[in-house]
Amino acid sequence: MVDPRAYEAMGQPITGFRDPYFLSVMAEVQSGLREVFGTTNRKTFPIPSSGSGGMEAAVGNFVRAGSKFAVFTAGHFADRIAIMGRRQRAQVVCCTKERGEVFTQEEASTFIEREKPDVVAFVQAETSTGAYQSGRAITAAAHKAGALVIADCVTSLGAMPVELDSVGIDIAYSCSQKGLSCPAGLSPISISPLAWEWLDKRQDDPATWYLDLRLLAKYFEEPHVYHHTPSPPLYYAMHQGLAVIEEEGLRARWERHRTVGEKLVFQLEKLGFEPLVKDSNERIWHLTVVLPPADLDEAKLRDRLMSKYGIEIAGGLGKLAGKILRIGTMGPLATEEQAQFLLDAIAASI
Amino acid sequence: MVDPRAYEAMGQPITGFRDPYFLSVMAEVQSGLREVFGTTNRKTFPIPSSGSGGMEAAVGNFVRAGSKFAVFTAGHFADRIAIMGRRQRAQVVCCTKERGEVFTQEEASTFIEREKPDVVAFVQAETSTGAYQSGRAITAAAHKAGALVIADCVTSLGAMPVELDSVGIDIAYSCSQKGLSCPAGLSPISISPLAWEWLDKRQDDPATWYLDLRLLAKYFEEPHVYHHTPSPPLYYAMHQGLAVIEEEGLRARWERHRTVGEKLVFQLEKLGFEPLVKDSNERIWHLTVVLPPADLDEAKLRDRLMSKYGIEIAGGLGKLAGKILRIGTMGPLATEEQAQFLLDAIAASI
Repeated sequence: MVDPRAYEAMGQPITGFRDPYFLSVMAEVQSGLREVFGTTNRKTFPIPSSGSGGMEAAVGNFVRAGSKFAVFTAGHFADRIAIMGRRQRAQVVCCTKERGEVFTQEEASTFIEREKPDVVAFVQAETSTGAYQSGRAITAAAHKAGALVIADCVTSLGAMPVELDSVGIDIAYSCSQKGLSCPAGLSPISISPLAWEWLDKRQDDPATWYLDLRLLAKYFEEPHVYHHTPSPPLYYAMHQGLAVIEEEGLRARWERHRTVGEKLVFQLEKLGFEPLVKDSNERIWHLTVVLPPADLDEAKLRDRLMSKYGIEIAGGLGKLAGKILRIGTMGPLATEEQAQFLLDAIAASI
Repeated sequence: MVDPRAYEAMGQPITGFRDPYFLSVMAEVQSGLREVFGTTNRKTFPIPSSGSGGMEAAVGNFVRAGSKFAVFTAGHFADRIAIMGRRQRAQVVCCTKERGEVFTQEEASTFIEREKPDVVAFVQAETSTGAYQSGRAITAAAHKAGALVIADCVTSLGAMPVELDSVGIDIAYSCSQKGLSCPAGLSPISISPLAWEWLDKRQDDPATWYLDLRLLAKYFEEPHVYHHTPSPPLYYAMHQGLAVIEEEGLRARWERHRTVGEKLVFQLEKLGFEPLVKDSNERIWHLTVVLPPADLDEAKLRDRLMSKYGIEIAGGLGKLAGKILRIGTMGPLATEEQAQFLLDAIAASI
C-alpha cells in the first residue's frame, strides 16, 4: 500500500532534471536513503528501474566475466542473482539450502574458504520464502577472503534492520514499493567506499550502459552530468515516503512491523496455518509466509479474500507455487486494526 | 509538459500487477502504442526504464557479440547507440555526418552495401540537433542486405510521423515524456514479426536480464508471467496520455506540431536566430534547434527565460554545448498562444 502522502506528492509539477527544486528533492532523497540503509556511503541514490534493475546494476557492475561469484541461495530471488551472474559470464558457485532456511556462520565460512570468490551475494529478506538473514554470518568470512558483498535488500529496506555499515555490506539495492510505501519504479542503491574504489579502478566497461553505476553517479553528484531522464513523480513520492519514515522514527517503524508480524503468525497458527520459516528470529516481520492447513485450497482462499474483502495476498513463486501464502503487512498496513481485519477475513473464509 | 489528464491519472489506486483492472489498462496502453507507432506488431509494450533503457533493450537483445552493427551518426544520441553496441562487443561501424544533417538514400545504400552489417540503427528524431529522418532512405538498403533495422523514436513518437510498418522499421523504442506528454519512466518498444523470429531463435541469452525482451514479452502477454514489478502510476498516466492523442486524432496532432514549429522557426529567423537544420523538410516540428545571433550569450538567455518567465529551454549537448538552443513545443505546449508567449519572452530578453 502506498502511503497517502506519497500519492499526493505525485501531483506536484514536473520540472526539468536540473531544476534547483528537483535537485534539492534528489539530495534529500539521497540523505533519507542513507538513513534507512544505515550507512554513511556517499554513493547512495535511486536508479531508474524496479528492484530487479537494482539487482542487475549490482551484479552487472561488480561481477566481471571470468570472475568467481558465490551466491547463497534458498529462494527465488537468490536464484535470480545467480542467473544474472551467469549472464555476465562469471563463474557462479551456489551455496544452496531448502527454501525458507538461512545460512549459519559455519556454513558461510566453510563455503567461502573453499571457493575463494571475488564477489559474494545473499538476500537479506527473501520475498519468496519470508526468511530474513541480516548478513552478519556472511560478511566477515567474505571480507577475510577479500571478496565484496552484495546484499539484496528489496524487502527489508524501511521495514526492518538493514544496517549496511554495521553488518559490513558493500553493495546493497532495494525497491520503492515495499518497506518505503511508495509506487514501484525506483531502485535505491548504496555502495561502500571500498566497493567504489574497486569500481573506479575497473578497466573495462560493464555491458550495461543504462545501469552503469559510474555514469549514474555523475548525474547524482555535482555537476549533475546528464545520463537518463529521471521520473519526477517517483522522486516526489519517495521524498514523502522517506519523510514519513523519518517522522515516525526508523526504529519505531521496525517495532511496529515486528509487533504486527508476530501477532499475525501467532493467530494464523491458531487457525491451522504453519509458518514456512521455523525459527521466529529468521522471519521477515512484514511478510508472513505460511503453509495452509492440509485441506485448504490456497488459490481459492486468495480469490475469496480478493473478491469479498478486497484483500490481496500472494501465492508461492517457482518451487513453492500452490504451496504457500505470502501476506504483506508493510507501511500503512502494519497496524493492529489491519491485522485484525485480515485475520477476521481469513477466519471467515476457511 | 505533462498533460493535465496524465497528472490526474496518477492519483488512481495502485493495484497488484495481475489485477484485472491493471491488466486491462496494460492492454489498452499496448493497443494505443501500436496506433502511435503506426504498426500492427503484436510485440509492442512499455518497458520499465527511461528512453535510454529502451535503447539498451534494442541494442542488447539484437546486437550480439562479434556481429556487425552499422550506426548512422550525426548527433549525441546516435553516438550513444554506437557506445552501447561496443559494450555488447559487436563490431561497430559508423556512417557519420555533421551534426544537424541527415543521410540520403545513396549514402545509406553505399555504406550498407560496403559494410554488410547484421543490424543497422538510425535516429528518427535526433533530440540533440533537431534533425528528422523518417528512415525510408535506410530501410530498403538494410533489408536488401538482410539486416534488421533499429530506429530511435524517442522524440518522434506521438508528435510526428513514425510509421514503423510503412517505413519498414524492425525494432523501435521511445520514451514517455516527450510526444506522449506523460512523466518519464516508461519506454515504449515495438518489434516486428521478422525481428521477433530472429530473437526467438537466438541461442544465447543477452547479458541483460532486466531488459531481456523475451522475458518481458511473457509478462505483457498471457499468462502474464512475473518478471519485474511495474509502476502503476506511470501506466495510468500513459493510458490517459494515449487517450488524449486518440481523441485529438494522431494526424491532427502531427499537424498541430508542424504548424507551431514552422511559425516558431519563421519568427525566430526574424529575430536573428538561424536553424541548425537547413532543409525545412528535415526538421523536427516540435523541437526547434537554432543558433543564436553572434553577439548573444545563449546561457544567459536561457537563465533569463527561466527566472523571468518560467520558460525552460535546453542548451546543446556534447559538441554543440554552448552553441545552440533547443526549444521543445510538444503536446499541450504546441499551440499558437504558447508559441507567441515564448516568442514575446525571447524578443524581450535579447
